[in-house]
Amino acid sequence: MNVEYLNPFIKSTVNALSTMACLEPSRGNPYLRKTGQKIECDISGTIGVAGEASGSVTVSFSESVARKIVENMLGIQVDSLNDDVKDAVGEIANMIAGGAKGELSEKGYSFKIALPVVCIGKDHYTEYPKDIPCVVIPFSVEEGAFYVEICLKVDDNGK
Amino acid sequence: MNVEYLNPFIKSTVNALSTMACLEPSRGNPYLRKTGQKIECDISGTIGVAGEASGSVTVSFSESVARKIVENMLGIQVDSLNDDVKDAVGEIANMIAGGAKGELSEKGYSFKIALPVVCIGKDHYTEYPKDIPCVVIPFSVEEGAFYVEICLKVDDNGK
Repeated sequence: MNVEYLNPFIKSTVNALSTMACLEPSRGNPYLRKTGQKIECDISGTIGVAGEASGSVTVSFSESVARKIVENMLGIQVDSLNDDVKDAVGEIANMIAGGAKGELSEKGYSFKIALPVVCIGKDHYTEYPKDIPCVVIPFSVEEGAFYVEICLKVDDNGK
Repeated sequence: MNVEYLNPFIKSTVNALSTMACLEPSRGNPYLRKTGQKIECDISGTIGVAGEASGSVTVSFSESVARKIVENMLGIQVDSLNDDVKDAVGEIANMIAGGAKGELSEKGYSFKIALPVVCIGKDHYTEYPKDIPCVVIPFSVEEGAFYVEICLKVDDNGK
């Protein structure tokens, strides 16, 4: 995957977390997910992408990191993966994909984004079509790591 | 949600299961998912939808139903949610959304579909944006129930 596609997602992730929760996540090195490698999490938000680029963007959190984000957003203690947390994870996924969409369309890659789907379940993980590269961008905040997985097939002819 | 949008998804679900696994699922009555209602499952496939209609289509299976489908497809015993099962669930989601897309575009609603995302985890469930209606279509095969959840915002002005 061209780094040209990756940077807008990194920027929009940092922007989403700082805007919504006043958190400044640090970023680890992106890597290509190997077959069988699982990013286990407790709550994830996925946005489908369709157009000249098609695929998905998923952001995955442990329960403690997701709760911390919402505690920062709302200024109250959050004891479970309640509706506020689910809404926030959907909105973060939306901001990540939406922010990257804006920047990528300026570069000539236009696509539409779907609505967020939030998945809740202890230690669940997601899989993507095997023939499409999936890049994992690890981030961390004080409470732990979270991950953005970008699985995109780009139609370069469409540019 | 207009029944005009719903029928193509019902038809494509039955078609996917019969084509891929020689199964004839029976259909229960579709219903509007209430806030807080959870469709728990062990493996689900989601496809994002973007365009004049935007949202998502999710198909959810228990482990036993998902394994049965793949046993029927491959003619071998399947003991776990292995790669064959994950691929099959992604492909079923793809066939459901892709089949409905064809029929809906003939009715004047055009949209693009993203690539499938398969989520694996004991008793996980999915949530969608609260302001968009989510219709659940229950199906069953001999081994148990499975569900198709359609969460679509339709831009009628675009028709």
